[in-house]
Amino acid sequence: MINQVLGDEYFMRQALNEARQAFDRDEVPIGAVVVCQNRIIARAHNLTETLNDVTAHAEMQAITAAANVLGGKYLTDCILYVTVEPCPMCAGALGWSQIPKIVYGAPDAKRGYTGIAPKALHPKTQIIGGIMEQECAQLMQDFFKGKR
Amino acid sequence: MINQVLGDEYFMRQALNEARQAFDRDEVPIGAVVVCQNRIIARAHNLTETLNDVTAHAEMQAITAAANVLGGKYLTDCILYVTVEPCPMCAGALGWSQIPKIVYGAPDAKRGYTGIAPKALHPKTQIIGGIMEQECAQLMQDFFKGKR
Repeated sequence: MINQVLGDEYFMRQALNEARQAFDRDEVPIGAVVVCQNRIIARAHNLTETLNDVTAHAEMQAITAAANVLGGKYLTDCILYVTVEPCPMCAGALGWSQIPKIVYGAPDAKRGYTGIAPKALHPKTQIIGGIMEQECAQLMQDFFKGKR
Repeated sequence: MINQVLGDEYFMRQALNEARQAFDRDEVPIGAVVVCQNRIIARAHNLTETLNDVTAHAEMQAITAAANVLGGKYLTDCILYVTVEPCPMCAGALGWSQIPKIVYGAPDAKRGYTGIAPKALHPKTQIIGGIMEQECAQLMQDFFKGKR
């Protein structure tokens, strides 16, 4: 359908596709996409092992890539979709980016920003969690089960 | 003197040199160096404007550069020197890096991690603040005075 407004599930599925690419590279399977005016402008997945770089989380790369596409560093008209709740580093970066909305799949009770650094985001940032939570969490569980 | 053990002031002066390079590029003047076995293995300064990227803080680039030099993503034998107290994003990244010691110059009451996200770092991380505080703070003040 032309000009169909795509929903949260559609974009989260795209983020999950990215997460699966991370899984296939033996990376912790987290993926993200940045959406601007109902269009995906950046896709990324965790590459911390491949790049030997703890800062190479999916969200960080998605922020950098989206800013490159937009030609400006602020993502004030964007939404970030990410399969797992952001960590404090990524929440801090999202705060700097001035992104107004973040949608995540599975919560991360141990490493997520809400438990460790809830003030890393601007209080007006809209946060939605639990979109396709089961699929996002299952991929993580499958990954860590394979590591045991 | 050969094999002289260099002190915090020496390394902070190197971080300040980086901060001055940021100043000269019209970037918020923050600089960082990573030291391993009393040797500087990475130098970086804030490049958020030049790179159009909110994630391009001095500390983030220093972490990435140091990991490249070491060939591994963990900075377990390193010290980070940075001219201004890290923000929550950088504190989160430093937490992931497992760096055991961070030395900063000037505190950042508004944007620093201690006020916003004190748990972003591992509780065992050693933090020293206030090394060459006046010089580090002065450079920031000079920068923002020029912006008014």
